[in-house]
Amino acid sequence: MSKKGILTVVSGFSGAGKGTVMKELLNQFDYGLSISATTRAPRQGEIDGKEYFFLTRDKFESMIEQNQLFEWAEYVGNYYGTPKKYVEEQLELGKNVILEIEIQGALKVKEQFEDALLLFITPPNAEELKKRLINRGTETIETIQKRLIRASEEAEYMNCYDYIVVNDDLKACVEQINQIIMNEHSKSSKNKEFIKEISNELEAFKRGEF
Amino acid sequence: MSKKGILTVVSGFSGAGKGTVMKELLNQFDYGLSISATTRAPRQGEIDGKEYFFLTRDKFESMIEQNQLFEWAEYVGNYYGTPKKYVEEQLELGKNVILEIEIQGALKVKEQFEDALLLFITPPNAEELKKRLINRGTETIETIQKRLIRASEEAEYMNCYDYIVVNDDLKACVEQINQIIMNEHSKSSKNKEFIKEISNELEAFKRGEF
Repeated sequence: MSKKGILTVVSGFSGAGKGTVMKELLNQFDYGLSISATTRAPRQGEIDGKEYFFLTRDKFESMIEQNQLFEWAEYVGNYYGTPKKYVEEQLELGKNVILEIEIQGALKVKEQFEDALLLFITPPNAEELKKRLINRGTETIETIQKRLIRASEEAEYMNCYDYIVVNDDLKACVEQINQIIMNEHSKSSKNKEFIKEISNELEAFKRGEF
Repeated sequence: MSKKGILTVVSGFSGAGKGTVMKELLNQFDYGLSISATTRAPRQGEIDGKEYFFLTRDKFESMIEQNQLFEWAEYVGNYYGTPKKYVEEQLELGKNVILEIEIQGALKVKEQFEDALLLFITPPNAEELKKRLINRGTETIETIQKRLIRASEEAEYMNCYDYIVVNDDLKACVEQINQIIMNEHSKSSKNKEFIKEISNELEAFKRGEF
């Protein structure tokens, strides 16, 4: 079966529990890391190539020009993005890599990397999403309303994802995502090499090399 | 998530262990049955609607004409086929149905039922297939050679399947197939209803129904 790593992109509504799901996935299973690039200054203790690749604006912009990023965005005057090279190296080594990216970024990854697996994490219904946002207890009603309006806009893109994963029970959700990624290795579209090999071997029998 | 049953079609090389895998799947998990139709006479003890739907040639041919079969073939003077109605009833009831059908039949099912999930079972390599056919001890070298030649022709269609499942370890293979089918319920293409519902609920928040 396909030994190359699978590139998975996880998105979901704010309040769906993406962060916790990602943390559990990376804790429990052996996924390859993705390291983002940024032009913001390193904070105390942050190491280049660990928390981020810290780049100058010139370097970042030349990477944009040379199409070396899966996706990028500018946020509060700084660039943030996902360098292709580091991810591709890990995939070649057979590591599955998971990226948590918001929807527009996720769709950009898919455009450039057709084999990417897109997962969308959602609570079982909108009422539950509202409840979770309220229960966080960290945000004003206005902020929660803004998040729900944003979720309503984001819902239009759910069809672009390969799977919709309901995060009702954390353990079950994490397990399901891991299973989906493992089974992705068995997709026929990802096993052209295997199909070719077994075809050639069978062909040899046909030629009488029994 | 999608409550409608998933229609799965399993094919694979003769000697890949399909029969045992199917038996284990139906034993261990709660799958809906498919009952084939045939024009051959019932054998002693066979009950209409249990082992087969036993039909007259006229009835079978009228079902062909009215497109009421997913696939059919004539074998030693008798018709065999898969009636749509019985399968569709079970899918509507939320039962997952698995059909074991050879390649041409499987592709016919997919043509008529786009949502069907196609799985191809294979041993890890051609040498292992040969070994299994020899170890059965029931067939002459000539028959084994014929089966391998047929496998070589069948290999050309592996790309048409959704997943290639290696049957190396029976238990793992059965588990993987069941997982693939379970996760199929989370495909976004099978959850248009869910996406629509959560979108409408979120839309209501946007209109201020908070």
